[in-house]
Amino acid sequence: MDRINDNGNTVGKPRTDLALEVRETFEEDNVEIQGVILKEDYDKKKDIRVTTVIIKDQRGADAMGKPIGTYITIEAPRLCEEDESFHEPIAKELAKYIRKLAGDVTDREILVAGLGNREVTPDALGPQVVDNLFITRHLIKEFGNDFSEQHKTGNVSAISPGVMAQTGMETSEVLRGIIRETMPKLVIVIDALAARSIHRLNKTVQVTDTGISPGSGVGNNRKALNKESLGVDVIALGVPTVVDAATIVNDTMEQFMTKQGFEDKEIQQFMGELKEETMNNMFVTPKNIDESIKRISYTISEALNKCFA
Amino acid sequence: MDRINDNGNTVGKPRTDLALEVRETFEEDNVEIQGVILKEDYDKKKDIRVTTVIIKDQRGADAMGKPIGTYITIEAPRLCEEDESFHEPIAKELAKYIRKLAGDVTDREILVAGLGNREVTPDALGPQVVDNLFITRHLIKEFGNDFSEQHKTGNVSAISPGVMAQTGMETSEVLRGIIRETMPKLVIVIDALAARSIHRLNKTVQVTDTGISPGSGVGNNRKALNKESLGVDVIALGVPTVVDAATIVNDTMEQFMTKQGFEDKEIQQFMGELKEETMNNMFVTPKNIDESIKRISYTISEALNKCFA
Amino acid sequence: MDRINDNGNTVGKPRTDLALEVRETFEEDNVEIQGVILKEDYDKKKDIRVTTVIIKDQRGADAMGKPIGTYITIEAPRLCEEDESFHEPIAKELAKYIRKLAGDVTDREILVAGLGNREVTPDALGPQVVDNLFITRHLIKEFGNDFSEQHKTGNVSAISPGVMAQTGMETSEVLRGIIRETMPKLVIVIDALAARSIHRLNKTVQVTDTGISPGSGVGNNRKALNKESLGVDVIALGVPTVVDAATIVNDTMEQFMTKQGFEDKEIQQFMGELKEETMNNMFVTPKNIDESIKRISYTISEALNKCFA
Amino acid sequence: MDRINDNGNTVGKPRTDLALEVRETFEEDNVEIQGVILKEDYDKKKDIRVTTVIIKDQRGADAMGKPIGTYITIEAPRLCEEDESFHEPIAKELAKYIRKLAGDVTDREILVAGLGNREVTPDALGPQVVDNLFITRHLIKEFGNDFSEQHKTGNVSAISPGVMAQTGMETSEVLRGIIRETMPKLVIVIDALAARSIHRLNKTVQVTDTGISPGSGVGNNRKALNKESLGVDVIALGVPTVVDAATIVNDTMEQFMTKQGFEDKEIQQFMGELKEETMNNMFVTPKNIDESIKRISYTISEALNKCFA
Repeated sequence: MDRINDNGNTVGKPRTDLALEVRETFEEDNVEIQGVILKEDYDKKKDIRVTTVIIKDQRGADAMGKPIGTYITIEAPRLCEEDESFHEPIAKELAKYIRKLAGDVTDREILVAGLGNREVTPDALGPQVVDNLFITRHLIKEFGNDFSEQHKTGNVSAISPGVMAQTGMETSEVLRGIIRETMPKLVIVIDALAARSIHRLNKTVQVTDTGISPGSGVGNNRKALNKESLGVDVIALGVPTVVDAATIVNDTMEQFMTKQGFEDKEIQQFMGELKEETMNNMFVTPKNIDESIKRISYTISEALNKCFA
Repeated sequence: MDRINDNGNTVGKPRTDLALEVRETFEEDNVEIQGVILKEDYDKKKDIRVTTVIIKDQRGADAMGKPIGTYITIEAPRLCEEDESFHEPIAKELAKYIRKLAGDVTDREILVAGLGNREVTPDALGPQVVDNLFITRHLIKEFGNDFSEQHKTGNVSAISPGVMAQTGMETSEVLRGIIRETMPKLVIVIDALAARSIHRLNKTVQVTDTGISPGSGVGNNRKALNKESLGVDVIALGVPTVVDAATIVNDTMEQFMTKQGFEDKEIQQFMGELKEETMNNMFVTPKNIDESIKRISYTISEALNKCFA
Repeated sequence: MDRINDNGNTVGKPRTDLALEVRETFEEDNVEIQGVILKEDYDKKKDIRVTTVIIKDQRGADAMGKPIGTYITIEAPRLCEEDESFHEPIAKELAKYIRKLAGDVTDREILVAGLGNREVTPDALGPQVVDNLFITRHLIKEFGNDFSEQHKTGNVSAISPGVMAQTGMETSEVLRGIIRETMPKLVIVIDALAARSIHRLNKTVQVTDTGISPGSGVGNNRKALNKESLGVDVIALGVPTVVDAATIVNDTMEQFMTKQGFEDKEIQQFMGELKEETMNNMFVTPKNIDESIKRISYTISEALNKCFA
Repeated sequence: MDRINDNGNTVGKPRTDLALEVRETFEEDNVEIQGVILKEDYDKKKDIRVTTVIIKDQRGADAMGKPIGTYITIEAPRLCEEDESFHEPIAKELAKYIRKLAGDVTDREILVAGLGNREVTPDALGPQVVDNLFITRHLIKEFGNDFSEQHKTGNVSAISPGVMAQTGMETSEVLRGIIRETMPKLVIVIDALAARSIHRLNKTVQVTDTGISPGSGVGNNRKALNKESLGVDVIALGVPTVVDAATIVNDTMEQFMTKQGFEDKEIQQFMGELKEETMNNMFVTPKNIDESIKRISYTISEALNKCFA
């Protein structure tokens, strides 16, 4: 999540990495946004809700503030529960949607990048997913395709590059370099995300074929992790594990002020003042975040192992 | 911090573990609270402010909602800065105040307890302090007092017991058991605290001779870590590393409502409604909390090693 | 493994924590040792070999240099393999033998102690097992027996006390104290062991009802973790993850000298000289020990969760 | 250490990464090897011995089985001692020799690569050194050269790429890619090494301008980390933290057989047989390796921070 600190959101707009939540900010949910398709499925038995947001064209991208592409959000309240019997069906569901976006991957080389800071619990999701992956690229190199045929595995490599405060480098620099050398056909980036609502934390996975584009692609492509910047297909898998502290305060304030009959202008002005506060580099996360990260990262590893290993 | 989840704070009263902040909640700072003495020193050169709150009697305890005893708060903005040259003077200052509360400890057996959850970054302070301590009890046992005389060390043992979700046991149960077996003369508990203000996070150390008393001693002594419950002198060393999410929202709201001219009753009512929200087990912490915890725990270890090793 | 450094083994006798390997050192395998019963089962399909050594009386204990009791050794070459489908049947098998030694435990309070040093990879087995346990004692305390009935769980608490270099205390002191406070009916200690043979590393689990008795109970009971010292039933679960460096050199040398026709006296003398070497605090372990510990600790946690949670 | 598993050493030749130890294998220490210069300094007060081995030409390289270049070995028995007052002078000494090999680096961009596996204690040296570095590249990028002038820092970036079993990629592939993107002027690789003698473990640092060349450069340049393969100056900093299990057995055997009057041919033959044993992927390391790695990595970080930050 570190990398998306200064993502140029306009003042007052609450920060979220979920296309689903951006969609919800439009005042009237039933109004169709031009260029954006919305689809929802709910599996009652498994308690898994899948929402697909497709941004078809530039109009949709402008309205949503997110690049053109497909955003699949899997909401599974049981994702962070202790009972492991819930995780297998979620991993299967997740694998299905990764395969859908990845296309035919059976014989492709995959690089999985576990973004984030291993030392900050809610940001350790990416590195922990990588820790549990079945890595095969070096084995196939050593034993030939016999290995992958015999074990029915794909060709998987992985890296947890760390965050800029640890490396002094942009994640995009590190990945671009590695990709040039090892030439994978598909990159999968795993990252902890910021949500707007506390209720979505650790219960939601977003899968998208747009990669990660901080600042909604407005010029800031140097930091982006997408096909344009990396030169290869990119699927991004994210789980909201934090809410920005400013967002949580803003949202409560805004609800209150609206309820109290303040006018939009007054609300905007007050919000602008709040922004000055030093809440900028603060996040909100649950006290049992260690357990949630452990379980969710395990489930995502399982999904990826199902797809590619 | 885990252990102080449900500390029976009355509704509306913001949650803080710092006596200093409790003192500040009294409307007019200059009014003397009966039974409470306040003293402040500021070393401009080192930029270290030391505030001593002494709760002298039960009246003071009732007013403050904290047990009788001495609370020394050391505010050092440089505590979490990268430049290590700042840490030595802070460690020295801290050692001075620990010695003050500990009395003559040169030849006493000390048990240091690093409370908190190693797996949740802002709560890992206690375990990380213990990781850097110079442990000597087993060496003195093996080589006799010659060892402690030759190396001029005290007799130090230490434990990081983990939190209840990891052990199924109260920290007080674990410590009481260990104390009965090993009979230390002084217990020092290290813990991450919750502050009310974001501005104090990772810049403040509170040293107190009251130990830790969740729920301000109102009957809930089973969980307390103090002389009464452990049967031995207890010094508590704490650093605020988080703010409760509810507190941060409440404080902003309250300020706003007061400014807008709402009446106390209205504010109280609105705050009561807010409480219902699911922010209960959420905390706020800075994004670079890993670096802060690493530096502060190192400084505290140094202070303890200066005192006892 | 830290705790068994100086276990008073007589010179020349290779060091091993496995009763099975002690048994093998008797020159002629088929000779019956008085007071010792040996039983072997092999499940070809699962490739799991179970050897039960029962030391019936003091004669057997003297001959074996181990306390009276039952030692079950489960050899499963697939224990450290990557393919997780192997782990489930091993966990089941292991659970069967734990239940056998534990007796009826469904409604008993269990304390699991993960011994060893989390910071030294081959010694991190115990702490890592504890990390994956389903801990319930605090939940039952909070929600009553309804919880355990509804979730069909036992009453499980756990602790990873660390090693003496970290705490300054004997593991036995820490556990005795905790046991006095929390009164479990059964203690299960998990520990990394030293084997004699490299071939057994990370492929073997020993389950015994004798606890852990460094120095074969000869007076050194202060350090022991058994019913006598802890006052409660103790089951020890151990996996050999290291070979003492001295052992590996000795064994090779001895084989060579025997083959070359040296006489026993000459061999003994040479071995005595070797002992002087500084290999005392050195161990041998495989380069991929991190992967093995991760897998095995997961399998053991699963076995314990099957039994008690 | 992972990367140098199969380094094509000729049978019987004991494995060591230290030029100093290779030099010692020549039967008569005082005989000059053509093309190799040896220089030794001993600072009695600090108890630091510095040995410089310069391999001047191909003859020297052939004789030593190591590439042409300068190998500085700093032996400091106090390197792994607990008393921190010893570490400062060692860090200073180390910094002196790094500067010597690095040339004028004040205004050069440096990439530090912490090789090895963070999860295997004796192999975690590189990653732990990186954890304590003062990283500045991103700050200079953000705040301009003002930052480096004001703080008198160099331009430092760093990466801990992990080992092939974790990434599926050669370390050389990962570094080559990152170097192409970020264009540092100097790469410093930190790695745990294998020594021949137990007595050198955790007391020795080797600094060399040859980089790391598995298999002594004989064709196997794909895996090498040197100027030729990375296209940029490379300084390698290594600390022997393990001895190969085979080496320790071989050495003891060889000493014994020589003493017993066996002929070289017999010894060679026996050693060949020993090789077949499964000791190949086994290493020997001390039980307190966690403490040594922590201290040494801290000292090396300090040395690097002195040089470049």
